[in-house]
Amino acid sequence: MSEVKKGYIRPLDFKHGRIDMSHGGGGRAMAQLIDELFLRAFDNEWLRQLNDQACFAVTTGRMVMATDAHVVSPLFFPGGDIGGLSVHGTINDVAMAGARPLYLAASFVIEEGFPLADLRRIVDSMAQASQEARVPIITGDTKVVEQGKGDGVFITTTGVGVVPEGVSISGERARPGDRIIVSGAIGDHGMAIMSQRENLRFDTEIVSDTAALHGLVTAMVMAVPDIHVLRDPTRGGVATTLNEIARQAGVGMMLDEAAIPVNPQVAAACEFLGLDPLYVANEGKLVAICAAGDADRLLEVMRAHPLGARAAVIGEVTEDPHHFVQMKTAFGGRRIVDWLSGEQLPRIC
Amino acid sequence: MSEVKKGYIRPLDFKHGRIDMSHGGGGRAMAQLIDELFLRAFDNEWLRQLNDQACFAVTTGRMVMATDAHVVSPLFFPGGDIGGLSVHGTINDVAMAGARPLYLAASFVIEEGFPLADLRRIVDSMAQASQEARVPIITGDTKVVEQGKGDGVFITTTGVGVVPEGVSISGERARPGDRIIVSGAIGDHGMAIMSQRENLRFDTEIVSDTAALHGLVTAMVMAVPDIHVLRDPTRGGVATTLNEIARQAGVGMMLDEAAIPVNPQVAAACEFLGLDPLYVANEGKLVAICAAGDADRLLEVMRAHPLGARAAVIGEVTEDPHHFVQMKTAFGGRRIVDWLSGEQLPRIC
Repeated sequence: MSEVKKGYIRPLDFKHGRIDMSHGGGGRAMAQLIDELFLRAFDNEWLRQLNDQACFAVTTGRMVMATDAHVVSPLFFPGGDIGGLSVHGTINDVAMAGARPLYLAASFVIEEGFPLADLRRIVDSMAQASQEARVPIITGDTKVVEQGKGDGVFITTTGVGVVPEGVSISGERARPGDRIIVSGAIGDHGMAIMSQRENLRFDTEIVSDTAALHGLVTAMVMAVPDIHVLRDPTRGGVATTLNEIARQAGVGMMLDEAAIPVNPQVAAACEFLGLDPLYVANEGKLVAICAAGDADRLLEVMRAHPLGARAAVIGEVTEDPHHFVQMKTAFGGRRIVDWLSGEQLPRIC
Repeated sequence: MSEVKKGYIRPLDFKHGRIDMSHGGGGRAMAQLIDELFLRAFDNEWLRQLNDQACFAVTTGRMVMATDAHVVSPLFFPGGDIGGLSVHGTINDVAMAGARPLYLAASFVIEEGFPLADLRRIVDSMAQASQEARVPIITGDTKVVEQGKGDGVFITTTGVGVVPEGVSISGERARPGDRIIVSGAIGDHGMAIMSQRENLRFDTEIVSDTAALHGLVTAMVMAVPDIHVLRDPTRGGVATTLNEIARQAGVGMMLDEAAIPVNPQVAAACEFLGLDPLYVANEGKLVAICAAGDADRLLEVMRAHPLGARAAVIGEVTEDPHHFVQMKTAFGGRRIVDWLSGEQLPRIC
């Protein structure tokens, strides 16, 4: 690093400095930003290859690849920020195939004038999330756009992982009679963002559930290798995720409203804002669908894991030529849980 | 597809329609955009898995991963657009490890109000580039940001590829005495963008060289498996790429100005705008560094390929504790080809 920095006039000012167009220009300023910020935060043997791509070893089998652009606003929110979120989000997409996430790539689109201090805070949060999850960020890219042509920073992360033998998890495997499980209380992430945007105050602050779920998934897959479906209900919430799966598998679903865990302050905030927690984004929860006979065993291992302590069966898969997701309400009625048709919570992730 | 569309009110209007926030919301509108635009254009067996990640088979060996955000402005330029560019750019980053690119992921950040007709044109261009290169786009993501918080569309593509046995290509392998080769005339992409921005008119239009180089690389690696370094000189041009390699390998370089191929209209435009073609971006050229004894054989196979017809040796690697890139000028002098210190051509890719 010392050799690299010889040519720089002075180190980056992470207290008062700002991103300018030269940081995306491919020249000395960009090299300095990469050295003093990204390489230092994400340091690992693959990134140190310093090529435009990173090389890693693989063994025969099946791999998965997932990508997610993160445009969450605000960038910092109760319980997290865009940095950690962008690591968790893609790790989770990889893990939802039952796969073990191996490596991440990260690409940044930064708005000119963005404070270096904020960028460093975000990058440090990514580095911490990546280290805690033991999934290194092995390659990346940085672009800068003019002020007013972006919004602080957008981060796209892409992940690859390896699928254990015998595991075949996919949306179209939901079958009538299967049980539908959620790993915990729903709506926390979306309402953490919304309560900050709307400046709501509660006795207990609503905190995003942003978390990497691959450890939980590993425990689940080891206990029940024949899990049919896993998916993380992010944008559009549990309702949208279940509609996607119903459509993909050609089935219906019947939920039990009373069984769906929702934290009281989330329920209160939703009521205040006129939102339904079923449509609110989660960033540290998953939906699992498995054969009825596997449900008890799966619930048991989920509840033994800190990220699945409040796991619950919330319904079952049905035969339905219309692929409707329905719900038995707390008052004994039934209603259709339709697709979200408009945009409820823009830029939630 | 027909079953999927049943719930939609009417098909997307690709003539007059525009992106709105609901297209990024995770609900029905987003599902419609994915069905009617992305799935249709990119159709392949992996994408049809319709999960949040795509699964593929691998065999033991070494893989590479590369990611690139594309923020080029304007989105459409002589010889290409952001769509094709985003496919070529990442294929090239994967290929520069000597790897065979296998799969791509694509993530979109779209500005509210962006015309659907333009989005379709861009997506079609990506689909065509992907099909011509035989590298499928197997997974993706779409986000929408409010008007004034983006700039049309940004596309991040991430690629994975497999490295043939016996191939070990990396920037730090440049050795004193090695020959430096470029695959053709330099500066075309950057000057195509600049001449459109500056509204310059020439007798012959300057056209971007955007192209996927993996076919050329395969031929090169088969002929000379011991190529030391490959890199595509994009942002910052050949000058920046060579400085990066010199720093990485701890060597110097001596270029021969007279040997560097530059198209006459590019040279003229550079002179007019006060730019040096050595610093101007390329999107369909590569720099190769190999042992002196391999240079003739490598040049021969490069020139036999349409994308390497004007390949030329432009200099050699030297011992230099300062890692300077120098050039013998056409007038018999010498000058240092330094890192670009500011930003010459913002948003060139």
